[in-house]
Amino acid sequence: MKELVFVGLGLNDEYGLTLKGLEEIKTADAVFMETYTSRMPDFNLQHFEELCGKKIQHVTRQTLEEENGKLILQAAEVGKTVFLVPGDPFIATTHVTLRIDAEKVGIHTRIVHGISIISAIVSLSGLHNYKFGKTVTVPFPETPAETPYNVIAQNKKLGLHTLCLLDLREPENRYLTINQALRTLQTVEEQKQEKVITPNTVAIGVARAGSNQPMLKAGFVKDLIDFDFGLPPFSLIFPGELHFMEVDALIAFADAPVEFRRLFR
Amino acid sequence: MKELVFVGLGLNDEYGLTLKGLEEIKTADAVFMETYTSRMPDFNLQHFEELCGKKIQHVTRQTLEEENGKLILQAAEVGKTVFLVPGDPFIATTHVTLRIDAEKVGIHTRIVHGISIISAIVSLSGLHNYKFGKTVTVPFPETPAETPYNVIAQNKKLGLHTLCLLDLREPENRYLTINQALRTLQTVEEQKQEKVITPNTVAIGVARAGSNQPMLKAGFVKDLIDFDFGLPPFSLIFPGELHFMEVDALIAFADAPVEFRRLFR
Repeated sequence: MKELVFVGLGLNDEYGLTLKGLEEIKTADAVFMETYTSRMPDFNLQHFEELCGKKIQHVTRQTLEEENGKLILQAAEVGKTVFLVPGDPFIATTHVTLRIDAEKVGIHTRIVHGISIISAIVSLSGLHNYKFGKTVTVPFPETPAETPYNVIAQNKKLGLHTLCLLDLREPENRYLTINQALRTLQTVEEQKQEKVITPNTVAIGVARAGSNQPMLKAGFVKDLIDFDFGLPPFSLIFPGELHFMEVDALIAFADAPVEFRRLFR
Repeated sequence: MKELVFVGLGLNDEYGLTLKGLEEIKTADAVFMETYTSRMPDFNLQHFEELCGKKIQHVTRQTLEEENGKLILQAAEVGKTVFLVPGDPFIATTHVTLRIDAEKVGIHTRIVHGISIISAIVSLSGLHNYKFGKTVTVPFPETPAETPYNVIAQNKKLGLHTLCLLDLREPENRYLTINQALRTLQTVEEQKQEKVITPNTVAIGVARAGSNQPMLKAGFVKDLIDFDFGLPPFSLIFPGELHFMEVDALIAFADAPVEFRRLFR
């Protein structure tokens, strides 16, 4: 059957996959996988292949972007093809084009969702999901970070939290750390002077969301800027207005200083 | 071991669970489950119990809210306890209090994430995740819908998309339909006259996100207001500024009228 099924691998390791996703792999004629859009720190391909009883073809960014995923479309032309993607298949927009191209040539497409890094981070923080504004990515220091700064400022004006994903270059095994991200944003603060990122700004650093050892640390920028969060991946939350229940959650789950109670009343 | 593990069931049926979640259930001393925060249309408890090889205790809103989850905390005091929650355990804030209460009495808590309805909807739409603003819930007609109207207006001003969850009362098997939600928002429009929800406003209706038969329909409010979306659950997206790739996605995946191409250039 001509079919292309996008299956989310979820986060961290082989076990983030859903039972439905596993079933799709087992019944597929061809299985492809990419790992360049996101990091899965504890993922073991060989063990995963044993688990699924299927050979999995690893595809690079080149295969997808330069050759327009020809390889995958060709397989889907002749049989049920599964394309495995870290997290949720379309939370990053990288693969939307492939899905459009497939539909254009009459290949039926389906999505089997996976755990997305975004809901994992929100969920871990205990903050109210409906109080998050626009999400933004903080780039590596060589790129200006004015956009994330402005997004944080805009969300704050509206009393909303900002989830900041930190840039990564998986193939180069390069990850922007929480400390670097805070410094980058402070550099913008020095130029713009809007008091969006001051030493006393409250932030929540999140490391390894979705893994078995996630780490959350809520505090002031001045405390987090040198805090050791261990291994990647990393992300940052800049809260807007905090409800007292959210403060309780930050104290209970993110080791927030108890003075937060006095600060947010 | 004194431990309370919150495990996300994901969406729709027994197979939305992750392999990790299944493992947690199999190794648990006690397993509880709630189904009142969200709908899992095709979930079969008996089959799920066979799948896990465990007896699962169904808990009501009363157990959790009136008795502060005493039942669950008592179990976690004496052994590894799993609490199953539809979607992702903390995307709804309902269970944050239970987690805080557990930590307060020295019960270690962990989260095994599940597919959240929010990333499923965003992912299905093909719209860019980072272009979504604040999420909002549209209430049943008996409650004023001014807040969602204002959130949609605010997001639009910023060029951002709005994801609207539609209210539901699972125990009463009652679901706000997309048609009703649009009418409710039109009523607010009649009062406020801000041209946020006009017959020519673009919207995307999403039904059964995460199921095997999701339905997406993008169009103008005047076309969607009587469109038959079939069975619940439902949600709505009001796009802000649309990138041409997002338009292509809406045409390919959400049956959007091709005139969208001319409209959003």
